[in-house]
Amino acid sequence: MTQRYFEDLPVGFTFRTEAVELTRDAIVKFASEWDPQPFHLDDAAAAETHFGTLIASGWHTLLIAFNLSMQAGVWDEASMGASGMDEVRWFKPTRPGDKIHVRAEVVSAERSKTRPDRGRVAFRIDVHREDGEKVASYIGNHLMKARGTSVA
Amino acid sequence: MTQRYFEDLPVGFTFRTEAVELTRDAIVKFASEWDPQPFHLDDAAAAETHFGTLIASGWHTLLIAFNLSMQAGVWDEASMGASGMDEVRWFKPTRPGDKIHVRAEVVSAERSKTRPDRGRVAFRIDVHREDGEKVASYIGNHLMKARGTSVA
Repeated sequence: MTQRYFEDLPVGFTFRTEAVELTRDAIVKFASEWDPQPFHLDDAAAAETHFGTLIASGWHTLLIAFNLSMQAGVWDEASMGASGMDEVRWFKPTRPGDKIHVRAEVVSAERSKTRPDRGRVAFRIDVHREDGEKVASYIGNHLMKARGTSVA
Repeated sequence: MTQRYFEDLPVGFTFRTEAVELTRDAIVKFASEWDPQPFHLDDAAAAETHFGTLIASGWHTLLIAFNLSMQAGVWDEASMGASGMDEVRWFKPTRPGDKIHVRAEVVSAERSKTRPDRGRVAFRIDVHREDGEKVASYIGNHLMKARGTSVA
């Protein structure tokens, strides 16, 4: 994808990413390090919870979505980081074998009044399974360089 | 910490966690896998960005905070997962050598009207450096079992 700057990401700009398959090994490895709850770690333990089967940590789903969005190349050089996220939602659990991808849309774009060499761009990141079901969503608030400026 | 259920986590309940030191190795390893932006990967590359020095991925800071909160034992057996997060904010970058801990507070607690064997508990998770500076914050929306019920 071509490098984009603040001006190239108006409200309504959309992109879609590749898909990644959630493997059992990756789910357990991630959860062991960050989110060691029984329904993320072990089939037998998960069967005794209200989820019934092993599910991925919601953080894991979000990080895959973020990483897929990064790989799409929209942020690259122009990225100055993010100030936060809003409305993070987990609608459905994700399970081993699920293939997930991101459909993203710019929902807000405002040039900085005090520093016009940059602007704030909010992306709604929707995470979908292969069958189309939306499993998670968040709004990422990014700071982006404007065109033709040198932000040190 | 004693096992807590929905009733044991009223608005105003607070807890504080242990601290963890962010190491350079951990910052680079995490970013390499999930958030490979130059200011998270390499001192020289970071020096050329507006951050000036290597900083941890904001996701990394959040996951450490979440994991510290888990280890505090407040969720344990009663946890039924989370529906989402609100108002995720990164106020300050975190850097190698920073020691961070969580100060958490229940900001909302509502028993389910349709299923009184559970309730929704929202925790404000504030992430602080050793010097007291608040570096990040989010509200985590958790589903918790109520006392004396068997939620399958």
